Amino acid sequence: MSPRGRRPGGGDTRAAIITAARTEFAAQGYDATSLRAIARTAGVDPALVHHYFGGKPEVFAAVVDLRVDPAALIARVLAGPREQVGEALVRTFLMVWDSEEGRERFLALVRSAMSHDEATRMLREFLIHEVFGRVTAALAHEGVDREELQLRAGLAAGQMVGMAIMRYVLRFPGVADATHDELAAMLGPTLQRYLAP
Amino acid sequence: MSPRGRRPGGGDTRAAIITAARTEFAAQGYDATSLRAIARTAGVDPALVHHYFGGKPEVFAAVVDLRVDPAALIARVLAGPREQVGEALVRTFLMVWDSEEGRERFLALVRSAMSHDEATRMLREFLIHEVFGRVTAALAHEGVDREELQLRAGLAAGQMVGMAIMRYVLRFPGVADATHDELAAMLGPTLQRYLAP
Repeated sequence: MSPRGRRPGGGDTRAAIITAARTEFAAQGYDATSLRAIARTAGVDPALVHHYFGGKPEVFAAVVDLRVDPAALIARVLAGPREQVGEALVRTFLMVWDSEEGRERFLALVRSAMSHDEATRMLREFLIHEVFGRVTAALAHEGVDREELQLRAGLAAGQMVGMAIMRYVLRFPGVADATHDELAAMLGPTLQRYLAP
Repeated sequence: MSPRGRRPGGGDTRAAIITAARTEFAAQGYDATSLRAIARTAGVDPALVHHYFGGKPEVFAAVVDLRVDPAALIARVLAGPREQVGEALVRTFLMVWDSEEGRERFLALVRSAMSHDEATRMLREFLIHEVFGRVTAALAHEGVDREELQLRAGLAAGQMVGMAIMRYVLRFPGVADATHDELAAMLGPTLQRYLAP
């Protein structure tokens, strides 16, 4: 390390930023953590954080090992036909999580959110601002207030999280062996009713 | 303790049976555990297990601290009008779990099922045979095969488990502060569509 504590570029820098971000997100929550604070903890220039990750949601996605950019995936779903939003969300969820290593990462995320208050808060704030904020803003329509939109988005998320627990954890017959088409046919209309009635 | 290892009646016996049952269910799973084996491990006469608990589902409910008889609750829902099964299930779920100590017990159950294979297996077998078996048998109708019924029951359960995680764990705005009426209005039609379309 140099005397000023700044690291050179490369894999070490990226790893150092992720480690620092994990610390900051856990201590401050998602909302109160800045890229500047992450850079300071990592001992790197803030420009390097931008360079490696883009922005805060991408740093968070790296910390929780998402391996996808949720904003980009959601934008793609929302750009499609409104009457197919429900089914498209189900298929996107399955694309991200429904592989052997996807399940492992999903379970690690849920277990951590269920056992550590810091992880719970971090995940909640991230979901609200980077995932559901986008969905509800795009689907907002007259006559539905903000609180009801949040309820609807939360129940849609709950349906997918709960399905995943039945499929990956409890390995419930019927759910564990359903195809993506079967799940999309059953769950699509549920999400559609919640999000774009 | 008497020389034959049989315990006298009373609170100690009940507690000894629960401890023995916890051991047996964890080791053998729900299905393979018999009341006779529980009695043997507890060092009591099998008739005493019947006397204190009734049957295996009631012993299990005591082990996981359910504090309700799921079979009786489900029977009550299924005895009501078929077109209100979805909403009645939502209201029953909330009645059982939606108090401060109910939430604690729900979380303990889910955490345990998510982290110990024995607990997962035990809960899955109990749910299949004592909870969902009853629901799907009662709601079975022509043109829907057994596998699809299991999928439908599993997705209904997933919706409720997922809602509870959003409400009790993530404390997601909109879901965390929704009233029972609001939840019944949103979730009732979902469960109705899955279980009694």
